[in-house]
Parts: sequence; C-alpha cells; structure tokens
Amino acid sequence: MSSESLVRADVDFERQGKQFGNLAVPQSTNSAGWAKRFIPVVVIKNGSGPTAVLFGGNHGDEFEGPVTLMNLARRLEPDQIQGRIILVPMLNRPAVEVGTRLSPLDGCNMNRAFPGRPDDTITGMIAHYVSSTILPMADLVVDIHSGGSSTLFLPSVNMHEVENQEQMRKMLDAGRAWGAPYVFIYRDVAGAGLLPTLAEQMGKVTLGTEMGSKSQFGVETLGITARGVENVLDWANILKRSSASAPPEPQLVAATEEADYIMASASGLFEPLCELGDEVKSGNRLGQIHSIEHPERAPIPVLAQTNGMVMARRAIPLTLQGELVVALVRPFEFS
Amino acid sequence: MSSESLVRADVDFERQGKQFGNLAVPQSTNSAGWAKRFIPVVVIKNGSGPTAVLFGGNHGDEFEGPVTLMNLARRLEPDQIQGRIILVPMLNRPAVEVGTRLSPLDGCNMNRAFPGRPDDTITGMIAHYVSSTILPMADLVVDIHSGGSSTLFLPSVNMHEVENQEQMRKMLDAGRAWGAPYVFIYRDVAGAGLLPTLAEQMGKVTLGTEMGSKSQFGVETLGITARGVENVLDWANILKRSSASAPPEPQLVAATEEADYIMASASGLFEPLCELGDEVKSGNRLGQIHSIEHPERAPIPVLAQTNGMVMARRAIPLTLQGELVVALVRPFEFS
Amino acid sequence: MSSESLVRADVDFERQGKQFGNLAVPQSTNSAGWAKRFIPVVVIKNGSGPTAVLFGGNHGDEFEGPVTLMNLARRLEPDQIQGRIILVPMLNRPAVEVGTRLSPLDGCNMNRAFPGRPDDTITGMIAHYVSSTILPMADLVVDIHSGGSSTLFLPSVNMHEVENQEQMRKMLDAGRAWGAPYVFIYRDVAGAGLLPTLAEQMGKVTLGTEMGSKSQFGVETLGITARGVENVLDWANILKRSSASAPPEPQLVAATEEADYIMASASGLFEPLCELGDEVKSGNRLGQIHSIEHPERAPIPVLAQTNGMVMARRAIPLTLQGELVVALVRPFEFS
Amino acid sequence: MSSESLVRADVDFERQGKQFGNLAVPQSTNSAGWAKRFIPVVVIKNGSGPTAVLFGGNHGDEFEGPVTLMNLARRLEPDQIQGRIILVPMLNRPAVEVGTRLSPLDGCNMNRAFPGRPDDTITGMIAHYVSSTILPMADLVVDIHSGGSSTLFLPSVNMHEVENQEQMRKMLDAGRAWGAPYVFIYRDVAGAGLLPTLAEQMGKVTLGTEMGSKSQFGVETLGITARGVENVLDWANILKRSSASAPPEPQLVAATEEADYIMASASGLFEPLCELGDEVKSGNRLGQIHSIEHPERAPIPVLAQTNGMVMARRAIPLTLQGELVVALVRPFEFS
Amino acid sequence: MSSESLVRADVDFERQGKQFGNLAVPQSTNSAGWAKRFIPVVVIKNGSGPTAVLFGGNHGDEFEGPVTLMNLARRLEPDQIQGRIILVPMLNRPAVEVGTRLSPLDGCNMNRAFPGRPDDTITGMIAHYVSSTILPMADLVVDIHSGGSSTLFLPSVNMHEVENQEQMRKMLDAGRAWGAPYVFIYRDVAGAGLLPTLAEQMGKVTLGTEMGSKSQFGVETLGITARGVENVLDWANILKRSSASAPPEPQLVAATEEADYIMASASGLFEPLCELGDEVKSGNRLGQIHSIEHPERAPIPVLAQTNGMVMARRAIPLTLQGELVVALVRPFEFS
Amino acid sequence: MSSESLVRADVDFERQGKQFGNLAVPQSTNSAGWAKRFIPVVVIKNGSGPTAVLFGGNHGDEFEGPVTLMNLARRLEPDQIQGRIILVPMLNRPAVEVGTRLSPLDGCNMNRAFPGRPDDTITGMIAHYVSSTILPMADLVVDIHSGGSSTLFLPSVNMHEVENQEQMRKMLDAGRAWGAPYVFIYRDVAGAGLLPTLAEQMGKVTLGTEMGSKSQFGVETLGITARGVENVLDWANILKRSSASAPPEPQLVAATEEADYIMASASGLFEPLCELGDEVKSGNRLGQIHSIEHPERAPIPVLAQTNGMVMARRAIPLTLQGELVVALVRPFEFS
Repeated sequence: MSSESLVRADVDFERQGKQFGNLAVPQSTNSAGWAKRFIPVVVIKNGSGPTAVLFGGNHGDEFEGPVTLMNLARRLEPDQIQGRIILVPMLNRPAVEVGTRLSPLDGCNMNRAFPGRPDDTITGMIAHYVSSTILPMADLVVDIHSGGSSTLFLPSVNMHEVENQEQMRKMLDAGRAWGAPYVFIYRDVAGAGLLPTLAEQMGKVTLGTEMGSKSQFGVETLGITARGVENVLDWANILKRSSASAPPEPQLVAATEEADYIMASASGLFEPLCELGDEVKSGNRLGQIHSIEHPERAPIPVLAQTNGMVMARRAIPLTLQGELVVALVRPFEFS
Repeated sequence: MSSESLVRADVDFERQGKQFGNLAVPQSTNSAGWAKRFIPVVVIKNGSGPTAVLFGGNHGDEFEGPVTLMNLARRLEPDQIQGRIILVPMLNRPAVEVGTRLSPLDGCNMNRAFPGRPDDTITGMIAHYVSSTILPMADLVVDIHSGGSSTLFLPSVNMHEVENQEQMRKMLDAGRAWGAPYVFIYRDVAGAGLLPTLAEQMGKVTLGTEMGSKSQFGVETLGITARGVENVLDWANILKRSSASAPPEPQLVAATEEADYIMASASGLFEPLCELGDEVKSGNRLGQIHSIEHPERAPIPVLAQTNGMVMARRAIPLTLQGELVVALVRPFEFS
Repeated sequence: MSSESLVRADVDFERQGKQFGNLAVPQSTNSAGWAKRFIPVVVIKNGSGPTAVLFGGNHGDEFEGPVTLMNLARRLEPDQIQGRIILVPMLNRPAVEVGTRLSPLDGCNMNRAFPGRPDDTITGMIAHYVSSTILPMADLVVDIHSGGSSTLFLPSVNMHEVENQEQMRKMLDAGRAWGAPYVFIYRDVAGAGLLPTLAEQMGKVTLGTEMGSKSQFGVETLGITARGVENVLDWANILKRSSASAPPEPQLVAATEEADYIMASASGLFEPLCELGDEVKSGNRLGQIHSIEHPERAPIPVLAQTNGMVMARRAIPLTLQGELVVALVRPFEFS
Repeated sequence: MSSESLVRADVDFERQGKQFGNLAVPQSTNSAGWAKRFIPVVVIKNGSGPTAVLFGGNHGDEFEGPVTLMNLARRLEPDQIQGRIILVPMLNRPAVEVGTRLSPLDGCNMNRAFPGRPDDTITGMIAHYVSSTILPMADLVVDIHSGGSSTLFLPSVNMHEVENQEQMRKMLDAGRAWGAPYVFIYRDVAGAGLLPTLAEQMGKVTLGTEMGSKSQFGVETLGITARGVENVLDWANILKRSSASAPPEPQLVAATEEADYIMASASGLFEPLCELGDEVKSGNRLGQIHSIEHPERAPIPVLAQTNGMVMARRAIPLTLQGELVVALVRPFEFS
Repeated sequence: MSSESLVRADVDFERQGKQFGNLAVPQSTNSAGWAKRFIPVVVIKNGSGPTAVLFGGNHGDEFEGPVTLMNLARRLEPDQIQGRIILVPMLNRPAVEVGTRLSPLDGCNMNRAFPGRPDDTITGMIAHYVSSTILPMADLVVDIHSGGSSTLFLPSVNMHEVENQEQMRKMLDAGRAWGAPYVFIYRDVAGAGLLPTLAEQMGKVTLGTEMGSKSQFGVETLGITARGVENVLDWANILKRSSASAPPEPQLVAATEEADYIMASASGLFEPLCELGDEVKSGNRLGQIHSIEHPERAPIPVLAQTNGMVMARRAIPLTLQGELVVALVRPFEFS
Repeated sequence: MSSESLVRADVDFERQGKQFGNLAVPQSTNSAGWAKRFIPVVVIKNGSGPTAVLFGGNHGDEFEGPVTLMNLARRLEPDQIQGRIILVPMLNRPAVEVGTRLSPLDGCNMNRAFPGRPDDTITGMIAHYVSSTILPMADLVVDIHSGGSSTLFLPSVNMHEVENQEQMRKMLDAGRAWGAPYVFIYRDVAGAGLLPTLAEQMGKVTLGTEMGSKSQFGVETLGITARGVENVLDWANILKRSSASAPPEPQLVAATEEADYIMASASGLFEPLCELGDEVKSGNRLGQIHSIEHPERAPIPVLAQTNGMVMARRAIPLTLQGELVVALVRPFEFS
C-alpha cells in the first residue's frame, strides 16, 4: 500500500509567528465516508534557532500535558522565544476525548506504536507522521506523561540510559533543568515502540516525564509541569526569560533490575502498605491483595524483592494478576 | 409478582460467635440457568447488646469500605465485642468486581435503589433485602463511601439534617466520635433512594462517610477509615477497648444551597485552580474548562456562586456538561 | 420511592422576556457521582396571552425540530409575540447527541414513555416533568417529528381523531394553518405512551408533524418546518405578524385500517417499486424484498392490502421482518 | 400507561383448520420507528374438544422445543386431532435467534417474567399476552425446556408439587404418559415468575420438561421430545392415534432440599467426577474446581451435601461462583 | 504465513452459461471452529468476448449496487450477451448484512483494503482474492457506489484522471455511455487502497459511480443504476441490445482542489443552506453548525473556499469535526 | 519494530526438578500502563532424555487439555520421568478465562496465528514465543483440542499427512499409542497458521487431538485424554511406567475431499438426522435446517456429498450459512 503519509498538516512549520492548526488524518467511519481526525498542532517560530517539540496526550488518560501545553500555546507569543516550538498537546486525541490510555479507535497504545507505518491503523499513522516529519525537525523532544488513571508516581523527568555519552550528559542536564524532584532512569519492561525510545535513537535530547504525585491531577502537578516546561525551554535557549532562579538539584534514581517492577501475583483488591518515597528493603510487605470472592481468606502479600525507594505504586485497588503494583528505585550515578 | 424476598442468607443473624457467609441472590444468566450472586456478609455476636451494621462497596469504585471491613472481619473476635456487628463489605459486589460506581448487571446505582422491591433487577433485590431484613436489626448504621474514581473529598463523616432533634444529636455525637477532620451536612442534589436516607427515616443513628482526601485511595485514607470504624463502634459501646485517646474535635460544615454544588456548564478538560480546603468567595475562578476540539479558544471559567470552603472537587479532568466540579461548604451550627 | 420530580429548571416560566436555560435531570454515572443531564429549554414571554409549547428532538434522529427551534429561539424577541412560547428543541437530548431514535442511556423511546414517573429511568423522568409541569401550562402543543433515519414521509401535520368535536375542530384548524401539503389522521399501531396522545387527552390543541419529504433532511423540509411553526404561532395569536398570505389548503388524509400499515413479511433488502404520493390499489406490488443469503431466489413481494396513496415508505433498504415498509392513506372528511 | 395488551395475533383461535401466523409485538428500534416483532403461533382445530397449548423456546438456547414443534406444526393436519392445539414454538424468539437463554432485547428471562404487564419491556409484554389470552384457553399446558447451553439433564418431565390433589394426580398421569425416563418434582430455587408456576396456579394440567441427556441436543433427545409430545396429546384425547404401545413407567424423583441444588463455592474450571444417573452420598466429591490463575493450587472440591442421584450437572467447565454445578434427586412418592 | 489465497470459488469462471455461486472465505468464530463466509458471485458467459466485472456492496450501506446486480443476475440469460459478465453484488457482504460502511468483522473499509494480503483480516483476504484472481480477468471494471447513509450525491459516474491518455479516453467514453447526468473526476482525499484506483493502475477501463441523488435510495436512483449498467455493458459490446436511444451527454466535472472538499471545523448539527446542483462562490455560507450543548450560541458557518457547484453534501445533520459536509466541482475538460 | 520476543519466562527450561511458572507477555491496557499477561508453564525435568511439549487451551472453549494438564502437572514428580516435559495447559489463557475459541483481547484464533511475530498483537506474540523458543526444544509435540462449544467429535488423535515418510510413520505410531478410538488424517479447510502444521514442518513428531465424544466435556472424555497423555509419554520413553496394557488398535480414518466437510448452505436451526459413527452415503439427508423467520416453510436438507462415516457434527442448532455441520471420513491406509 501507500508508502507516503496520508496525514496533512494545515500549519507551515517554517513560517514565522504563531499558528494554531491540525494534523488531519484520513479516517473512514460508518457515519462519514470521507472524514479526517484532527490532531491539534501549534507552531511558534521567531527567527532562527533550535527547535523544541513537546507532546502531551500520548496516553489519553494523562492530562497534565494537554492542559499545560494548551495554556502555553495560548499564552506564549513569538517574540518571547528565539527559534521554534512545536506543540502537540493531544497526540492521541481520540484517546484524550474518552480519557483512556489506549485509542478507542483501534485499541492501540500510541507509546508502543513508533515508528508506525503510513498504512497503519490510525494510531500508527499518527506515529509515522511524527516519526518521519516532526521528530526530524527537533533538537529537543519532550513527551509529557503522568501516572494517568492507574498509577501514582513521584514527579520526575525520565529517560533511558543511552549509549552516546554526550547525548546522555545533555539529557541529564536538561532533566536537571526541569526542576522536578527526581530524574528517573528506567528500563522498558512492558514493550517496545515508545516515542522517547525512538527519539533517543535518533540522537535527540529527549525527556519523558511522569508528572504525577501523591495527589494525582491537581494544582501541584500542573504547577510542576508548567514550570518544568518553561525551565527546559529556557535551558534550550529558546524561551527568553530575564531571570529565573535555578531549580533545586533533583535526585537521580534508577530502576535497573527487572525485580524492581513488582507485578501482582494474583487478582484482587490491592491495599498499599507503603507510600511514594518510602525506603523499603527486600522482603518488606509493601501491600496485600484481598480476594473479592473469598473475603475470609488471608490476603496475598506483595513483597519487595529488592531494596529501594517507592517510586510508583498502583493507584487503583482493583488489580489483575500481572499488573504493576509497586516500582522501586535506587540512587543513580552518572560518571 | 413475588412480594417476598428471593434472597437467602447462609448466616444465622442470631447465632453467637463469628460467621462468614453470603447473601445469595437469584440471577439467571446466559451462562447459567440456575445461579446466584453472592454478597458476602459477616456476623459477629457476643451476648446481648446493640447492633451495628456497616456497609462498604455501596458504590463499586469506592474501596476504602471493602478493604477496611474485610480486614476488620478477619481480625475481630467475638470476645472483643458486646452486642452484634453485621458487616457487608461489598454491598454492590458486582460493581466492586469491575470497579464501577454502578452495577454492571443492571446499570443501577445501589445508592438510588432503596428501598427496592423483591421483583426488582438485582440491585433493587439486594436493596430490598437490606431494607426489609438487615436495617430493622440495626441500632447504628454506617455506610462507608469515598470519592471513588471521580471525586476528591475532604475526609468526612456525613449526614442529612434530620427532623428528629434527638436522633440528630446522636448522629452528630457518633459523627464526632469517628475522628475524621470534618462532619459534613449535605443535601440530596442528585436523586432519591439513598441507603442512609432510608436508614435515617427509620430513625436509625446513621453515618455516611466520604473517606477521601487529597491523595485518594492510600495509607492515609485507609487509616482514617479503620480508626473511625473502631471509634464509632466504641462510641456505640459495642467494641470493648480498654482505652483510646479522644479523637480531635471535627469541624461541622454544611452545603445548604443548591448553588454550593457547582456543575460544569460545558464539556471539556477541567483544570482545577483551587484545592480541597481552600476558602473561596463568590465570583472566584475555581477552575476552567478547556475545549478539546478548539484548543485555541479561551477556557470557560468555573466560578464560585457562594462563599465557602472547597469540600470536594472533580478528580478527573475529562468532564461532561452537568457533572459536579466543585462543592463548597460553610460552618454548620447545631443548636 | 419519590413521588416528586427530581428535575429542576433554571428558567422562571412566569418571567417576562427571553430566557435560555436547562432542565437538569439527576443522572449518576460511572464517571460522575453527582451529575445532571441538561435538556435545553427556552421561555419567551410578553404580557399575557396563550402559551404554546413546542418540542423537537422527541426522537433523536429527527433533526428538523431541533434546528428549527434553535433558530427560532435565537431569532425571536419578546416584543414580537403576545403571550408565551416555551421551546424544548431537544426533548431527548441524549438521543439527539448520538443521532438515534431511542435514548442511549436507557434504551427508551421518549414517545412511548408518557406520562412517566419521577423515579423512572431518565427518559421517563423527563417525560414525567413534561407531563406534570410543562404540558399543564400549554394552550397549544406542537411535537415536531420527521421520518428520521428510517422512514420517508410526505410532509404533514398529524393528529389522532379525538372524541371532543370542538377540540378536533380546533386541531384541524391549527393543522390547516401550518401550511404543510397534508394533514394526516393516524392510528397508534406501534405502542402507547405518546406525548401527543397525552396532550390530546389533556384537551390541548395538539399537533404532531412528520416533516419529511422525498428528500429527507434538507433545505426544503427545514423551510416547511420553519414556516409552519410561524404560521401556527400566528394562528394561535401569539406571533405578531403584520401580514402573511394564507397557506394553501392541505389535503386531509387518514390511515384508518391496520392493513394500511404494511410490515415486512421477511427480512432482507427492501426495493421500493413505488414512491411517496403514488396512488395504489390493493394487490399492487409496492416493493420487493431480496434475500441477502440467497440472491438467486426470487424476491418476496410487498403487496398493497388496501387502496390508497403512499404516505410513507421505509428509507433504508436493510429491513427486518415486521418493520413498516409502506403506509397508505385515503382522503379524510371531518363532518 | 396502557392496561390492554398491544400484542396482536393474526390467527383466529376459534377457526377450524390449520393456521400459521404470528403474535405481533410493537417494538420501536433505532432502525425502525414503527415495527413489530413476530412470535410464530400455529393453531390447529378440529371440531370441539380440549385445548393443548405447547411452548418451545421459552429459553432461547433450548432448541428441542422449537424443532419438535415446528416439525409437528408442518406435519399435523386438522383431521388427525379432535379439539385444538396451539403451538408457540419460539416463545422468546428474539432469544432463539441469537441462541441465548435471555432475550437480547431487554436482558430478561422469559421464564421469570410471568404474568407480565402490557407496558412491560418486550419479554414482559409477550408474557402478559400469554397469561391473559392464551393460557385461559388451555386445558393442558406444556412448556418444553432442556438443559440448554449450560446444563446436562436426565430427560424428564417436571412439575412442582401443587396443593390441589386432583390437579396433581392429573399432572402426574400426564407426566407418566410422556414416556420420558423420569418425572421430576422440583423447587423454585432461582427466582419467581415462571410460566409453569403460573399455569399451575391457574389450575391447568401443566408439564414442564428438561429434554436433555448426556449427549445434549441430538437425535436421541429430539426423539424423546417428539414422541413425548405425541404421547401426551394422545393422553389428552386430542391426537387421534389408532394404537400406540404404553410408554415405560418413569421413575418419580424429587429434589426437595435447598441443599440438593449445589452451587459452586468458587469460580474456576469445574471438572465433573460424577455423571448423570450416578448414586452419591453426602460428602462424596462430585467434582472439583481448578483455579485458572493459580494452576499450582489444589482444586476446590464440590461435595454432595445430601444423598441422591445426579439429575443434572453443569455442562460448561468455565464456572462462576454461585452457578449450579450438580443437582441431586431422591425417589418421590405421591400418595 | 500463507502466500496463497485461502478463498475458494465454487463457480468455474471459464464455463459457458450462468452460474450462481459463492466465494468462500475461511473465518473462524467463537460459534464455529470451521466456518466460511460466503460472498455471492455470478458468472454469465456466452462464447468468447470481453469480460466485464461489476461490484456492488463495496460499502455495506450503499444498496443501489446490490439490488441492481441481483436483479440483473436473475434476469440476464447467457444468450443475451457475447463474452462474460462477472457480478459480485455484495463485495463486502458482512457489511451489507448490517448496513454499515465498514465491515463489522474487522472494522475495515473494503475500499481502502486493496490490494490486500492472503493472511489479512477478512476484508483484506477478499480484496486480495479480487486483486489477484478476478481483476486480471476483466476488460471493464465497474464499482457501484452511492452516497450511502452519510452523503447525498448528484448521480454520477466517476474516475481519477489517469496518466495513460488512451485509457483515460476509453474511461470517459464508457462514463458518457452510462447515461448519468454527471461524470465526476475526483481526487483521493481520504486515504489509499481503493478498488478503482488499483483497477486503473492495472490499466483496466474502470468506472466508479455515486448513484445517489437528492432523494437517496429509491425508484429514481435504482433506475439510473439499472439503465447505466445496461448502457455500459452495451458500450462494451457484451450486452446484445437491438436498439437503445443514445443517453444524454453528461456534464464533465472535477473537484481538483483539496479545498473543494469542505470538512466540518466543529462538531454539532449541520444545517445545509444549499442543495445539490447549486452554484456557489468562495465565501458563500453553505451551511452552519449548531452547538448541541449551547443552543444559545450562534452557529458556526460553513463557508465555500472555492467557486463551484455543489456535487455532494452531508446527509446526516449530526456531524463530527473533520467530516465532509460539502464537496464542490467545476467543469472539466479533457483535451 | 522489535525483532526479539518481549515475552519472558520465569522458569528455567534447563533446570532439573519441577517448576511452576509463567510466560509473561507485556500488555498495556486502559487499567494498567505497565502490565503483563501470565501464561502458565510447567517444566518437569529429570536427567537427560527426550522432551515432550504438551499444549492445552489453544482454543479457549476446549477444556479437556487445561484440566488434564493441570492435574498432570500437580501429580507428576520428576523421578517418575526420564527427560523433560513442558506443559502449557492454557496456551490462549485470555480465551480460556472467558471460554471462547478466540482471544477476547485481539479477536485472534491462536491456531491460525503461527508462527507469529514479536510485535504482533498478544496472540501472535505468544505464538511467536512458542515457535521460536519452545518448539525447538521438543521431540514430541502434543496439542490437545476437542470439539469445544460448537462441534461434537469422535475422540481421535489427528495429524496431516506429512511428506517425510519416517516422520509420518513415527506420528502414526505415537497416534496409535494414545489409545483413542480413532486416528484422524485431516486437511486444512479453514485457514493456515496452525500450531501442529508448524510443528510438523519443523519435523517434530506432532499429535493433535479432538478429545470430544457424543457427550462433550465429561468423565469419559477426560479419561480418554488423561490416559492418552500418559500413553504417549510412555511411548516416547519419558514416563517411566512399570506396566500398562497395550491400548486397543485405533481405526485410521481420513477426510481427504473438500466435500467431506459439509458447510451449511443456509442459516437457521440445524436438526441433525445422523449421529457420530453413522455410515452414510452420498445423497443421504444428514440433517435439515429450519427457518426461524418462516417456520411454515419446509426445512432445507443437508445432504452427504461423499460416502463415509460421521466423524464430527455441529453441536449447536443455531447455525450460520457457511458453518460446518457434518464432516465425513473414510478408512485410511498408510503404506
């Protein structure tokens, strides 16, 4: 089938000034033969300089990105920057519309769909356009995530440990600049095809985030997100700010073992016995899983298998076997 | 049709000691002609004395009740009490199993289904059994709720303002005994048929709760729930505790105006600009609603229409027109 | 359960001037514990005088009413009328939002739900509010229907033959005033609980309509609807128009026999062999139904069982056994 | 709402000869505003004499009734009978069309919907028409059931133990005449509203059946059904047969204890360790339930709680807590 | 996986005479392990001569093709033709059965699935069989479309502008021969993988159609389709007709600009202010979109962005952002 | 995308002794961002020797495999064997959990998904892991099937006729060793991508089974399965049994013609007129299909098109056009 993207943008990525527009993705449905899905895109350009691309809504139940980037898009004027900012506040907009992690149109996880194909289902078509048209323009790639509906996270900027030392150093610098309490180095334990993985492989300075907190979506996490976006744009010399106090130094942490990611061994109601930030030791009972069918039975313990700090935990008590309940981290040193 | 309940309990409510059992509710399905749904029930009885009935899982996405009551049921032994405790940790168990507010079997809200009918759909059949068999045994009725998946609440014990002053005074006493930061007097702005409303009308000392907090389900809210249940059983002279420090005096608050319950005037992404506990004035912008379809448009403001403190706010940004986004309260005085 | 309506209107039906507002209907969902569905309502009042109530969107796939009444609501100013106009442009708004005849929330047909109950599912709660609060205010009731997605209709105003001769005469006068080509007297062959039936029983001058045509939704049918609404408001002495030419005299037609309503005897693809307005005789082949599974078989004929004119036919070829394919009428005389 | 049935039959129950027709039940859908669901009905009448009414397809996954009664309807000619036979081969035809126990249109169990109401959902509308129009014409009522998709049954005619001794004796005589290996006296352990219960209460000679066998639907069970129907019509003096050998005397059995109906105490895969016809004693292991999530765990035993013979067992291994896995019977004596 | 088609035809494409048969496509389902879906195919052959292949039901909600081709298949006898006619009246039969554009089995659009693969989901398996087995036999390919459930079209034969001038001239000749009022040259604005595009690329004389009209499915459009099919078979020297008057010369029109295809900029109720055939100028208001949620707001205008004639418009008022609402054309000249 | 499997096993296939573990397959869902699906796997190893791999639950509605292999896994101890046994009792566990043939997660048929890809949907990811990691370890491959919910089968071991004569002879020997009444040689009439086909192509001694019987799931079929598994492990010199009587010689049968697999020519209710094991001749009426919509019509006959014995028949009366209703076999000779 077609080897060229069928996606069309109604913005000109090279034009000076600010443009609100859409990526239009062909999508035949039972209620419309000729139809397109619109993915909003904003381009702000002033003179020449580096390009930052910022994504929100890669997962449809993580709203810190969409809200922060929409506020930024309306507020920021071209003369406040030098270079170019491309904002895609709702990358998986069909999922954002219904508030689910996966796209309701094809059931796909956008963050497992990269690099995508032009003749893919809609999620892969969008991923392909991003991979082939948008990412190549970027110097800095930011993909804003949060715990979403299922996980609580300590607010953090995250990245893989990439091989290129120069790229790694820049990424850590950018991560520190954000101002989040943690910079988190993670492994891919649940699949391939991530947007940040691809961007890293393309050599881009790439930041993911988990803009959660103990209190999920709210004033605090929105603040960390909004300030972090400005800080990192400042770090990249795109945003022209007269002055800003240096952000506090984050902790560098990493979950390097498969065993740091604790999956539920049984389905049931997960009761947490620890909270984010707690230091735990291997063998500690971090939670327990109650049987819905047999409440008289003792609950099944969730035990730490490594030593570390609680970086994330499941937010929803209702749990299926195999779902992540706790993730532990230890200090990370980059030499 | 039948005027007698078809529900059968396999516990003997009059027997001394501790029994784990089930309410069995006939429910024909496509995969089983003769089948019953089991609703767990626990009876703990020691000698004679008052009866407390405690419900969890009235809404299937509010897990503080189920977890607390299952822990209590396994831990508590008859000789620790005087009188009788009846625990129904997952009143709407079909909903608990899938983690939704409403029953997946008939789409019904258990807390709008009272008093129910014997020939109702399953939610109403359970409600009818509770109304006709369990509630009449009670001196104290506790219905444990929390914000669930859609709302954040300041942790509180709640009740209507009932006409009978003696009953009201006892209910306030019991509410104070719980040890939650707030006792919340509320109006029914979203329907009739509530379990607590019926229990109050039957003259029972009735406590509802909203065991939420800024951080939703977690160690803190589970602690408030577990301690509160023990405190109120102590207050009722059922739980024999040697000593417990008096709980701190809660604030009494009430949302007496229809305008205290602010519904979204438009669908979109709700961004909160206030948090639980904030004092606000009429006209303050408490949040704003962003258009998903038109991110370039200014968001629609959510304005306070009364003065008060933020008692609850919507936890999920994705919002439909008409959904509660903020509820405000003011100090309540009982004379 | 509750015998009082839980529906609240935020308009004052007695206030002079024009108000846009909503009927708010409590509706708990899995994504919002405290929530309301809004049904738009518009009140325009000037001085004293008769009250006309106009409904659109009783069925969610019939859009002539919603579009016409929304245009009217925005255009009409109080000083253009004498008396009161109450507009409910999308009576079954949940169905209008998804474009289906029945409500997606409870599967109910609004036009079979009258008079409804306060503790009904949402369709019946709305019907009950209309029955108990809105209809009693009316002198003239207009319920705008059209063929919707399944049927083509000759554009007509319709009514039952009511027993009260005075009421019948007024209804025929009002029907003639509309200016549609036909006034159609019909029988209830498919159920009870219709809004117009209830309004007629309450003694109101009641008009239903089938604002279809050979070409379904479009400029022509919208024009007939818009002009008809103005004409009948003029007839009722509510709309103050300086002058308007008298509408052409409509044909009075009636489908008085059960056999005038021809249902498909088999499922398959219905091919019409007649069109609206054709005169046919008993035994004529009006269409035929092709087998999808066995295209080699001769199609099953659809035969007229009475003499008459084709008033309506099925718009969609895909047909289930028992669905109406053709309705015939004959001239009606009122003496 | 309406207190009269909206169901129309296009057969004349009083006419001599054979008529194939339908009960037409109004049913508005999203694809047809004016539509009816057809429930086939066949009337065969010759002279005067008693009336037998036979139902198949009360549950939509039990096909012995529909196939047997359709074959009978096409084969039987009026001169072969004396009196009247009314056949409703697919009482819940919407369920038969999709092969499910419950109606796909309203989720209702036809055999829990009696006597129904005229303004009910479709299942109750049909039940009401049967209760008010068809059953009153009957001298003999036969409701043909089988194990359906979920249960294996020893082939049997069944009934409750009715109070009227004369009626009971006639019912047992009719049951013996059928020629099935068993006559089964049962209790209603799973709800109210059964067709046979209502017919018994109306004083009719009423037979239910469970036309299963070890081999489910097939030549053997169809043969038992077809011969049984002829035998009982002969017994009732309606079918004129020159000669037929007397059927073998059936065993009379009854499940009189609630504990005879064994429900699964846990969900999982049910492995039967006994088969239909086995004699078992209280405490015997009749099966075991394997955990899908934890195959390393010992399966949960299903133990007999009474002595008896295995009359029925679950046909499908996949089992939910509360579903019937085994039913036991003991010899029954009628004095 | 397999590189050979698993589809089997039970007709012999080389046999003289008329055969009704099926393409059998393997399709495992939950209700049948070994099962096939049948796609009807009819072959009519007489002597030697060119081959015409005609498809209907490429989209399941466009019934002009299925009805016309089924009528033709039953009526046409071999001696009426010279050469071969292959009819596939319901190419996407699973979609035809439920009346939806897309297949209900895999959600795929048949007209975006070409050329398909042998190990594709069912839509692609059918497409692959057509691409690899049926199209190569064709001299003339006709793919009958109409507006379906979502769009109104001026009745037209259509095609792309192909590069090969000889092929283009023949296609225009064939198009003129059809006798539809318009020959429409279009661009692919909504995806790739169309059947006609592939046939054109294979060098076949290829005609698409949009057999809609202002009145959608009915006697008029069926007539245009039936006559057109005969006319074009006559043009191809396959159908032997003694005489037929030359069809009127159609208008040649084209929509060559992306801006000719106007997509809705907002979701809501689309009210058309123009009709098919109207001449409009850039800037004209062709319609407006009403907000369902905020009826008090002014509707959003749909403006022409080019000059032209209205060739198509959305048939359904309920509209999502991005769906086509109007398509404009201008005269086309082929030199 | 990734070319390496993302599936992880927590057993060590080379370790001596018995291990219960799982294959963990990454699977993002809306309720868990980081999650895995567990497919149970059991490894029993003692010393060196051949490896047998046994699969159950390839189709989720065929429970003989899961139950037999779970019982075996718990009972068998390492010292009872020589070599290695790898058990995957529920290969498509997501399908087993809901009792459907196809996976509820991606709608795929596991037995059409081989060899799969690492970046496939979940069914293909599992198939790929089996193809690339588990099958290469095997000397003997057993894939336990049965009729499932839709088909009745004579109990049989089955295989294709493979080209390699040595392999074929070993497979027949192994098949005879099982002890089932039949060894069945079959053709792939319904698709490609089967597990046994791939194993055969890899040169493995491969046995499929259809462990059905006239009575579907029950004591008899479970016994044939359990004994057969032990017999074939004994044959392969893995299971150390002191003595076992030689199993009776099975009949070798084959369905070599496409016409041996009779598909329904029409939808309706299939009434079987033959049973498993019956000898039939071409032209015999094996069953008939009744019209649900038109019970007055004569049923459509199902005729044998070859001579043979009934090996399988449809278990469910409700039948769609194209579904297998009867399969016939004839004696097979291997020379």
